[in-house]
Amino acid sequence: MTRAQLFEQILKKKSYLCIGLDTDPKKLPQHLLDFEDPVFEFNRQIIEATADLCVAYKPNIAFYEAQGPKGWVSLEKTLEVIPQDIFTIADAKRGDIGNTSELYARAFFESMDFDSVTVAPYMGADSVKPFLVKDGKWVILLALTSNPGSQDFQMLKLADGSEEYLFEQVLRTSATWANSDQMMYVVGATQGEFIERVRAIVPDHFLLVPGVGAQGGSLEEISRLGLNQQCGLLINSSRAIIYASSGEDFAEKAREAALEVQREMEGYLEKYVG
Amino acid sequence: MTRAQLFEQILKKKSYLCIGLDTDPKKLPQHLLDFEDPVFEFNRQIIEATADLCVAYKPNIAFYEAQGPKGWVSLEKTLEVIPQDIFTIADAKRGDIGNTSELYARAFFESMDFDSVTVAPYMGADSVKPFLVKDGKWVILLALTSNPGSQDFQMLKLADGSEEYLFEQVLRTSATWANSDQMMYVVGATQGEFIERVRAIVPDHFLLVPGVGAQGGSLEEISRLGLNQQCGLLINSSRAIIYASSGEDFAEKAREAALEVQREMEGYLEKYVG
Repeated sequence: MTRAQLFEQILKKKSYLCIGLDTDPKKLPQHLLDFEDPVFEFNRQIIEATADLCVAYKPNIAFYEAQGPKGWVSLEKTLEVIPQDIFTIADAKRGDIGNTSELYARAFFESMDFDSVTVAPYMGADSVKPFLVKDGKWVILLALTSNPGSQDFQMLKLADGSEEYLFEQVLRTSATWANSDQMMYVVGATQGEFIERVRAIVPDHFLLVPGVGAQGGSLEEISRLGLNQQCGLLINSSRAIIYASSGEDFAEKAREAALEVQREMEGYLEKYVG
Repeated sequence: MTRAQLFEQILKKKSYLCIGLDTDPKKLPQHLLDFEDPVFEFNRQIIEATADLCVAYKPNIAFYEAQGPKGWVSLEKTLEVIPQDIFTIADAKRGDIGNTSELYARAFFESMDFDSVTVAPYMGADSVKPFLVKDGKWVILLALTSNPGSQDFQMLKLADGSEEYLFEQVLRTSATWANSDQMMYVVGATQGEFIERVRAIVPDHFLLVPGVGAQGGSLEEISRLGLNQQCGLLINSSRAIIYASSGEDFAEKAREAALEVQREMEGYLEKYVG
């Protein structure tokens, strides 16, 4: 999916919501356990109930990988029921030496047909570039994450006289590898004060913001500081939506939770994007 | 596997060779393609031919993941035919926020029974600690990798007045998370000059050194600079061994290639470990 197509979706749905399909077999509503593939059935119903309210779905691959081969089957089937006009993110945080990253790119872009993969930056250019294979396929690079451990290395200051943090150098360097038509960044919402620093370096790129909701970021603050003229934000919510209820009404309650976020986003789009 | 058990293996086999099972379906000898699972059959024969010459096997997970669900089946079957006394490394380079890293740990340590997983450091403490779950299960943390991209971020100097590189801070900080009984480090052999800097910070830890052979590091230099009193090195070779021949004699030729490395290692163990 191209940036123009993504922006078109955002305007049409008045939403920049990404729903995280972090589907934990231990948290499924009881009545789904009779299905042959309960994880897939859960995802299918969540997607059916929310597809008009969000512009992206993001399965975190760990949840599927932890189930062994059958988890990958659930993932493939899930991908097949996501409508074509919705952006898909394999939240895999992969990254390896060049010829090995190629294999990961093949797994997510060819064997499966994801629009994007999250990639870890530590191994540098040749670990990231193999994911930049063709138009409409995206790298979403980890820049500043929302977890406590982001303090350990991402927030180290560099000795180049710039007074910049490592995550800022990651943005600056990686922005030379691909432009805002192929690269996005993960920027943690629990650190709203840093959104401005990010926007100073990458004003045009889309930012994938996890951590709104369960992890505690403010949707208003992120939107005010992060939205640009082509929206430029995908805000992820996982648990607050998909586990809004653990009963038979889980899909209905997920829709209600997604609708609440979408309505708030509609207001920010009017106010800040126009 | 504990550190004492690993060292015992090393002394018994006079080897600190790790063989990388980076099995590419496109590079298999023709005669294996008739098997139901050619990747597994290739691995099985490589393992049978080399198990007395090496102390570890390291499948790079990308090669299996790229095959979809059936790749994970090949991986599980491969793990089952590796003798119990050989150390196993899931070269997965995973890492996510805490509760998600737990799922990856479960995938590699419980669903499968690997002794260790390679982990990327960028997301910090809470992304790594979930892999430190019990004795005999190891994190092998990326410190200094052997690819060109290692220059991009790992070699940035920090502004703390220490004149240290980022990878040195990664060593220093992560060494407070786990001792040398649970943590090892990936240190690229193409950068022999840095082995001494690494040993100054982590004298006791095992280092997993990729990049000898195809990627060009010198076994003599790495051994001289890296060996400690409990060996402290696992040196990986993948392509130079497993693809030593593409014919029907691939396993025999793999054995010859492994034997050559083992004999060289035997000399260094005598000379530097005693």
